[in-house]
Amino acid sequence: MTAPIASFDDLFVGQRFAYGRFALTEAEIIDYALKYDPQPFHTDPEAARAAPLFGGLVASGLHSMGMCFGLIMRSGIWREVSLGGSGIDTRWPAPLRPGEEVAVETEVLALTPSQSRPMGVAKLRHTGTRVADGVCVIEMIGTHFLKRTAAPPLSPTAARGR
Amino acid sequence: MTAPIASFDDLFVGQRFAYGRFALTEAEIIDYALKYDPQPFHTDPEAARAAPLFGGLVASGLHSMGMCFGLIMRSGIWREVSLGGSGIDTRWPAPLRPGEEVAVETEVLALTPSQSRPMGVAKLRHTGTRVADGVCVIEMIGTHFLKRTAAPPLSPTAARGR
Repeated sequence: MTAPIASFDDLFVGQRFAYGRFALTEAEIIDYALKYDPQPFHTDPEAARAAPLFGGLVASGLHSMGMCFGLIMRSGIWREVSLGGSGIDTRWPAPLRPGEEVAVETEVLALTPSQSRPMGVAKLRHTGTRVADGVCVIEMIGTHFLKRTAAPPLSPTAARGR
Repeated sequence: MTAPIASFDDLFVGQRFAYGRFALTEAEIIDYALKYDPQPFHTDPEAARAAPLFGGLVASGLHSMGMCFGLIMRSGIWREVSLGGSGIDTRWPAPLRPGEEVAVETEVLALTPSQSRPMGVAKLRHTGTRVADGVCVIEMIGTHFLKRTAAPPLSPTAARGR
Protein backbone atom coordinates (compact mmCIF):
# COMPACT_ATOMS: atom_id res chain seq x y z
CA MET A 1 0.00 0.00 0.00
CA THR A 2 1.23 3.48 -0.85
CA ALA A 3 1.79 5.69 2.19
CA PRO A 4 -0.49 8.72 2.65
CA ILE A 5 0.65 11.89 0.87
CA ALA A 6 1.48 14.47 3.57
CA SER A 7 1.59 17.62 1.45
CA PHE A 8 0.87 18.95 -2.04
CA ASP A 9 4.64 19.42 -2.40
CA ASP A 10 5.23 15.67 -2.11
CA LEU A 11 3.55 15.09 -5.49
CA PHE A 12 5.12 15.27 -8.95
CA VAL A 13 3.66 15.40 -12.45
CA GLY A 14 3.49 11.93 -13.96
CA GLN A 15 3.22 10.24 -10.57
CA ARG A 16 0.84 7.27 -10.54
CA PHE A 17 -1.22 5.50 -7.92
CA ALA A 18 -3.09 2.20 -8.14
CA TYR A 19 -5.94 1.26 -5.82
CA GLY A 20 -7.08 -2.23 -6.70
CA ARG A 21 -10.22 -3.39 -8.45
CA PHE A 22 -13.98 -3.44 -8.25
CA ALA A 23 -16.84 -5.24 -10.00
CA LEU A 24 -20.58 -4.69 -9.83
CA THR A 25 -23.32 -7.30 -9.69
CA GLU A 26 -26.53 -6.90 -11.68
CA ALA A 27 -28.39 -6.30 -8.39
CA GLU A 28 -25.96 -3.54 -7.34
CA ILE A 29 -26.25 -1.83 -10.73
CA ILE A 30 -30.06 -1.88 -10.56
CA ASP A 31 -30.17 -0.77 -6.93
CA TYR A 32 -27.95 2.27 -7.56
CA ALA A 33 -29.72 3.29 -10.74
CA LEU A 34 -33.23 3.06 -9.25
CA LYS A 35 -32.19 5.87 -6.90
CA TYR A 36 -29.78 7.98 -8.91
CA ASP A 37 -30.14 7.25 -12.65
CA PRO A 38 -33.39 5.40 -13.38
CA GLN A 39 -33.13 4.51 -17.07
CA PRO A 40 -34.22 1.10 -18.43
CA PHE A 41 -30.70 0.09 -19.57
CA HIS A 42 -29.53 0.55 -15.94
CA THR A 43 -32.56 -0.89 -14.13
CA ASP A 44 -34.30 -3.53 -16.27
CA PRO A 45 -32.25 -6.41 -17.78
CA GLU A 46 -35.14 -7.35 -20.10
CA ALA A 47 -35.66 -3.82 -21.49
CA ALA A 48 -31.87 -3.31 -21.64
CA ARG A 49 -31.55 -6.09 -24.23
CA ALA A 50 -33.36 -3.80 -26.68
CA ALA A 51 -31.15 -0.75 -25.90
CA PRO A 52 -29.52 0.17 -29.26
CA LEU A 53 -26.16 1.28 -27.82
CA PHE A 54 -25.74 -1.39 -25.14
CA GLY A 55 -27.83 -4.51 -25.89
CA GLY A 56 -27.87 -5.38 -22.19
CA LEU A 57 -27.73 -4.02 -18.67
CA VAL A 58 -24.89 -1.53 -18.02
CA ALA A 59 -23.86 0.37 -14.92
CA SER A 60 -24.84 4.02 -14.55
CA GLY A 61 -21.79 6.17 -15.24
CA LEU A 62 -22.41 7.86 -11.89
CA HIS A 63 -22.15 4.47 -10.20
CA SER A 64 -18.77 3.74 -11.78
CA MET A 65 -17.60 7.22 -10.69
CA GLY A 66 -18.62 6.40 -7.15
CA MET A 67 -16.97 2.97 -7.20
CA CYS A 68 -13.71 4.56 -8.37
CA PHE A 69 -13.80 7.30 -5.71
CA GLY A 70 -14.69 4.77 -3.04
CA LEU A 71 -11.46 2.90 -3.83
CA ILE A 72 -9.43 6.08 -4.29
CA MET A 73 -10.45 7.56 -0.94
CA ARG A 74 -10.41 4.31 1.05
CA SER A 75 -6.76 3.83 -0.01
CA GLY A 76 -5.86 6.51 2.55
CA ILE A 77 -3.39 8.06 0.09
CA TRP A 78 -5.31 11.36 -0.07
CA ARG A 79 -6.62 11.42 3.52
CA GLU A 80 -4.10 13.94 4.86
CA VAL A 81 -4.13 16.37 1.93
CA SER A 82 -7.55 16.38 0.26
CA LEU A 83 -9.45 19.61 0.93
CA GLY A 84 -12.15 19.13 -1.71
CA GLY A 85 -12.55 19.70 -5.41
CA SER A 86 -14.23 22.08 -7.84
CA GLY A 87 -14.93 19.90 -10.84
CA ILE A 88 -14.55 16.60 -12.69
CA ASP A 89 -14.67 16.03 -16.43
CA THR A 90 -15.80 12.46 -16.98
CA ARG A 91 -15.81 10.26 -20.09
CA TRP A 92 -17.19 6.74 -20.43
CA PRO A 93 -15.48 5.35 -23.56
CA ALA A 94 -17.08 1.90 -23.11
CA PRO A 95 -20.00 0.51 -21.09
CA LEU A 96 -19.50 -1.40 -17.84
CA ARG A 97 -21.48 -4.65 -17.53
CA PRO A 98 -22.23 -6.83 -14.50
CA GLY A 99 -19.30 -8.89 -13.27
CA GLU A 100 -16.61 -7.03 -15.22
CA GLU A 101 -13.54 -6.28 -13.11
CA VAL A 102 -12.20 -2.73 -13.27
CA ALA A 103 -8.74 -1.60 -12.10
CA VAL A 104 -8.57 1.98 -10.79
CA GLU A 105 -5.54 4.25 -11.09
CA THR A 106 -4.59 7.93 -10.82
CA GLU A 107 -1.98 9.94 -12.71
CA VAL A 108 -0.89 13.43 -11.65
CA LEU A 109 -1.38 15.70 -14.69
CA ALA A 110 -0.58 19.19 -13.34
CA LEU A 111 0.28 20.90 -10.06
CA THR A 112 -0.30 24.60 -9.41
CA PRO A 113 0.48 26.07 -5.98
CA SER A 114 -1.94 28.67 -4.66
CA GLN A 115 -0.45 32.16 -4.32
CA SER A 116 -2.71 33.10 -1.43
CA ARG A 117 -3.45 29.99 0.65
CA PRO A 118 -1.52 27.01 2.06
CA MET A 119 -2.75 24.71 -0.67
CA GLY A 120 -2.27 23.73 -4.28
CA VAL A 121 -4.48 22.76 -7.19
CA ALA A 122 -3.83 19.29 -8.62
CA LYS A 123 -5.24 18.06 -11.91
CA LEU A 124 -5.59 14.31 -11.44
CA ARG A 125 -6.54 11.83 -14.13
CA HIS A 126 -8.43 8.89 -12.64
CA THR A 127 -9.09 5.89 -14.84
CA GLY A 128 -11.01 2.65 -14.61
CA THR A 129 -9.73 -0.09 -16.92
CA ARG A 130 -11.53 -3.34 -17.66
CA VAL A 131 -9.07 -5.99 -16.49
CA ALA A 132 -10.11 -8.64 -19.05
CA ASP A 133 -9.17 -6.62 -22.14
CA GLY A 134 -7.48 -3.40 -21.00
CA VAL A 135 -10.31 -1.20 -22.30
CA CYS A 136 -10.86 2.08 -20.42
CA VAL A 137 -14.46 2.28 -19.16
CA ILE A 138 -14.13 5.58 -17.29
CA GLU A 139 -11.77 8.55 -17.33
CA MET A 140 -12.16 11.43 -14.88
CA ILE A 141 -10.02 14.54 -14.86
CA GLY A 142 -10.55 16.12 -11.47
CA THR A 143 -9.56 19.50 -10.09
CA HIS A 144 -8.52 18.85 -6.50
CA PHE A 145 -7.47 21.25 -3.76
CA LEU A 146 -4.64 19.77 -1.68
CA LYS A 147 -3.11 20.95 1.58
CA ARG A 148 0.47 22.23 1.77
CA THR A 149 1.97 21.61 5.17
CA ALA A 150 4.84 24.03 4.54
CA ALA A 151 5.42 26.24 1.54
CA PRO A 152 8.82 25.49 0.00
CA PRO A 153 11.54 28.16 0.06
CA LEU A 154 10.85 30.89 -2.46
CA SER A 155 12.94 30.71 -5.61
CA PRO A 156 14.93 33.89 -6.43
CA THR A 157 12.51 34.57 -9.34
CA ALA A 158 9.45 34.18 -7.15
CA ALA A 159 11.04 36.37 -4.45
CA ARG A 160 11.73 39.13 -7.01
CA GLY A 161 8.13 38.90 -8.12
CA ARG A 162 6.85 39.93 -4.70
CA MET B 1 -45.45 18.09 -15.92
CA THR B 2 -43.73 18.34 -19.29
CA ALA B 3 -44.72 15.58 -21.71
CA PRO B 4 -42.05 13.04 -22.70
CA ILE B 5 -39.88 14.05 -25.65
CA ALA B 6 -40.61 11.59 -28.48
CA SER B 7 -37.66 12.30 -30.75
CA PHE B 8 -34.37 14.20 -30.94
CA ASP B 9 -36.02 16.40 -33.59
CA ASP B 10 -38.58 17.68 -31.08
CA LEU B 11 -35.86 19.56 -29.18
CA PHE B 12 -34.51 23.06 -29.89
CA VAL B 13 -31.46 24.93 -28.66
CA GLY B 14 -32.31 27.12 -25.68
CA GLN B 15 -35.18 24.85 -24.59
CA ARG B 16 -35.47 24.48 -20.82
CA PHE B 17 -36.88 21.87 -18.49
CA ALA B 18 -37.50 22.06 -14.74
CA TYR B 19 -37.80 19.00 -12.51
CA GLY B 20 -38.54 20.17 -8.99
CA ARG B 21 -36.31 20.18 -5.93
CA PHE B 22 -34.32 17.99 -3.59
CA ALA B 23 -32.60 18.36 -0.24
CA LEU B 24 -30.28 16.01 1.63
CA THR B 25 -30.23 15.22 5.34
CA GLU B 26 -26.97 14.88 7.25
CA ALA B 27 -27.62 11.13 7.54
CA GLU B 28 -28.14 10.76 3.77
CA ILE B 29 -24.94 12.71 3.02
CA ILE B 30 -22.92 10.52 5.39
CA ASP B 31 -24.49 7.28 4.15
CA TYR B 32 -23.70 8.02 0.49
CA ALA B 33 -20.17 9.22 1.19
CA LEU B 34 -19.23 6.23 3.34
CA LYS B 35 -19.72 4.08 0.24
CA TYR B 36 -18.70 6.29 -2.66
CA ASP B 37 -16.60 9.23 -1.41
CA PRO B 38 -15.31 8.61 2.12
CA GLN B 39 -13.68 11.90 3.09
CA PRO B 40 -14.07 13.44 6.58
CA PHE B 41 -15.91 16.56 5.33
CA HIS B 42 -18.56 14.23 3.82
CA THR B 43 -18.74 11.61 6.59
CA ASP B 44 -17.87 13.17 9.98
CA PRO B 45 -19.68 16.35 11.14
CA GLU B 46 -17.12 16.85 13.93
CA ALA B 47 -14.05 16.58 11.66
CA ALA B 48 -15.82 18.59 8.94
CA ARG B 49 -15.93 21.64 11.21
CA ALA B 50 -12.13 21.84 10.84
CA ALA B 51 -12.21 21.49 7.02
CA PRO B 52 -10.56 24.69 5.70
CA LEU B 53 -12.74 25.08 2.59
CA PHE B 54 -16.09 24.05 4.08
CA GLY B 55 -16.15 24.47 7.89
CA GLY B 56 -18.88 21.85 8.15
CA LEU B 57 -20.40 18.76 6.59
CA VAL B 58 -21.05 19.03 2.82
CA ALA B 59 -22.51 16.57 0.33
CA SER B 60 -20.21 14.62 -1.95
CA GLY B 61 -20.33 16.15 -5.41
CA LEU B 62 -21.12 12.67 -6.73
CA HIS B 63 -24.16 12.55 -4.47
CA SER B 64 -25.50 15.87 -5.80
CA MET B 65 -24.94 14.57 -9.35
CA GLY B 66 -27.00 11.49 -8.52
CA MET B 67 -29.76 13.51 -6.86
CA CYS B 68 -30.04 15.71 -9.97
CA PHE B 69 -30.13 12.74 -12.36
CA GLY B 70 -32.65 10.96 -10.16
CA LEU B 71 -35.02 13.93 -10.62
CA ILE B 72 -34.16 14.40 -14.29
CA MET B 73 -34.84 10.78 -15.20
CA ARG B 74 -37.86 10.26 -12.94
CA SER B 75 -39.53 13.23 -14.69
CA GLY B 76 -40.14 10.89 -17.63
CA ILE B 77 -39.18 13.66 -20.07
CA TRP B 78 -36.22 11.70 -21.43
CA ARG B 79 -37.64 8.17 -21.10
CA GLU B 80 -38.52 7.70 -24.78
CA VAL B 81 -35.38 9.21 -26.30
CA SER B 82 -32.40 8.65 -23.99
CA LEU B 83 -29.98 6.07 -25.43
CA GLY B 84 -27.09 6.79 -23.05
CA GLY B 85 -24.26 9.28 -22.79
CA SER B 86 -20.53 9.52 -23.35
CA GLY B 87 -19.44 12.16 -20.85
CA ILE B 88 -20.32 14.83 -18.30
CA ASP B 89 -18.25 17.86 -17.34
CA THR B 90 -19.21 18.79 -13.80
CA ARG B 91 -18.50 21.90 -11.71
CA TRP B 92 -19.41 22.51 -8.09
CA PRO B 93 -19.23 26.31 -7.69
CA ALA B 94 -20.48 26.18 -4.07
CA PRO B 95 -20.82 23.44 -1.43
CA LEU B 96 -24.16 21.79 -0.64
CA ARG B 97 -24.99 21.49 3.07
CA PRO B 98 -27.63 19.40 4.87
CA GLY B 99 -31.18 20.70 4.53
CA GLU B 100 -30.49 23.09 1.65
CA GLU B 101 -33.12 22.90 -1.09
CA VAL B 102 -31.84 22.63 -4.66
CA ALA B 103 -33.91 23.26 -7.82
CA VAL B 104 -32.86 21.20 -10.86
CA GLU B 105 -33.15 22.38 -14.46
CA THR B 106 -31.84 21.53 -17.94
CA GLU B 107 -31.06 23.79 -20.88
CA VAL B 108 -30.43 22.46 -24.40
CA LEU B 109 -27.04 23.84 -25.50
CA ALA B 110 -26.44 22.13 -28.86
CA LEU B 111 -28.01 19.51 -31.12
CA THR B 112 -26.07 17.51 -33.70
CA PRO B 113 -27.85 14.82 -35.75
CA SER B 114 -25.86 11.66 -36.42
CA GLN B 115 -25.02 11.11 -40.10
CA SER B 116 -25.02 7.34 -39.77
CA ARG B 117 -27.56 6.29 -37.14
CA PRO B 118 -31.17 7.18 -36.20
CA MET B 119 -30.02 9.37 -33.30
CA GLY B 120 -28.60 12.74 -32.43
CA VAL B 121 -26.07 14.10 -29.96
CA ALA B 122 -27.43 16.66 -27.50
CA LYS B 123 -25.28 18.84 -25.28
CA LEU B 124 -27.43 19.46 -22.21
CA ARG B 125 -26.57 21.80 -19.36
CA HIS B 126 -28.03 20.54 -16.10
CA THR B 127 -27.93 22.85 -13.09
CA GLY B 128 -28.75 22.64 -9.41
CA THR B 129 -29.54 25.98 -7.80
CA ARG B 130 -29.86 26.60 -4.06
CA VAL B 131 -33.41 27.84 -3.67
CA ALA B 132 -32.69 30.10 -0.67
CA ASP B 133 -30.21 32.40 -2.45
CA GLY B 134 -30.11 31.41 -6.13
CA VAL B 135 -26.51 30.19 -5.94
CA CYS B 136 -25.56 27.41 -8.37
CA VAL B 137 -24.19 24.41 -6.45
CA ILE B 138 -23.73 22.10 -9.44
CA GLU B 139 -23.42 22.49 -13.21
CA MET B 140 -23.14 19.46 -15.49
CA ILE B 141 -22.67 19.63 -19.24
CA GLY B 142 -23.61 16.21 -20.54
CA THR B 143 -23.17 14.61 -23.95
CA HIS B 144 -26.34 12.59 -24.51
CA PHE B 145 -27.33 10.27 -27.35
CA LEU B 146 -31.03 10.68 -28.20
CA LYS B 147 -33.25 8.60 -30.44
CA ARG B 148 -34.73 9.99 -33.68
CA THR B 149 -38.04 8.36 -34.50
CA ALA B 150 -37.95 9.62 -38.10
CA ALA B 151 -35.13 11.42 -39.85
CA PRO B 152 -36.38 14.70 -41.34
CA PRO B 153 -36.43 15.10 -45.16
CA LEU B 154 -32.94 15.50 -46.57
CA SER B 155 -32.06 19.03 -47.56
CA PRO B 156 -30.92 19.45 -51.21
CA THR B 157 -27.37 20.03 -49.96
CA ALA B 158 -27.35 16.86 -47.89
CA ALA B 159 -28.88 14.86 -50.76
CA ARG B 160 -26.14 16.04 -53.14
CA GLY B 161 -23.56 14.89 -50.60
CA ARG B 162 -24.76 11.29 -50.81
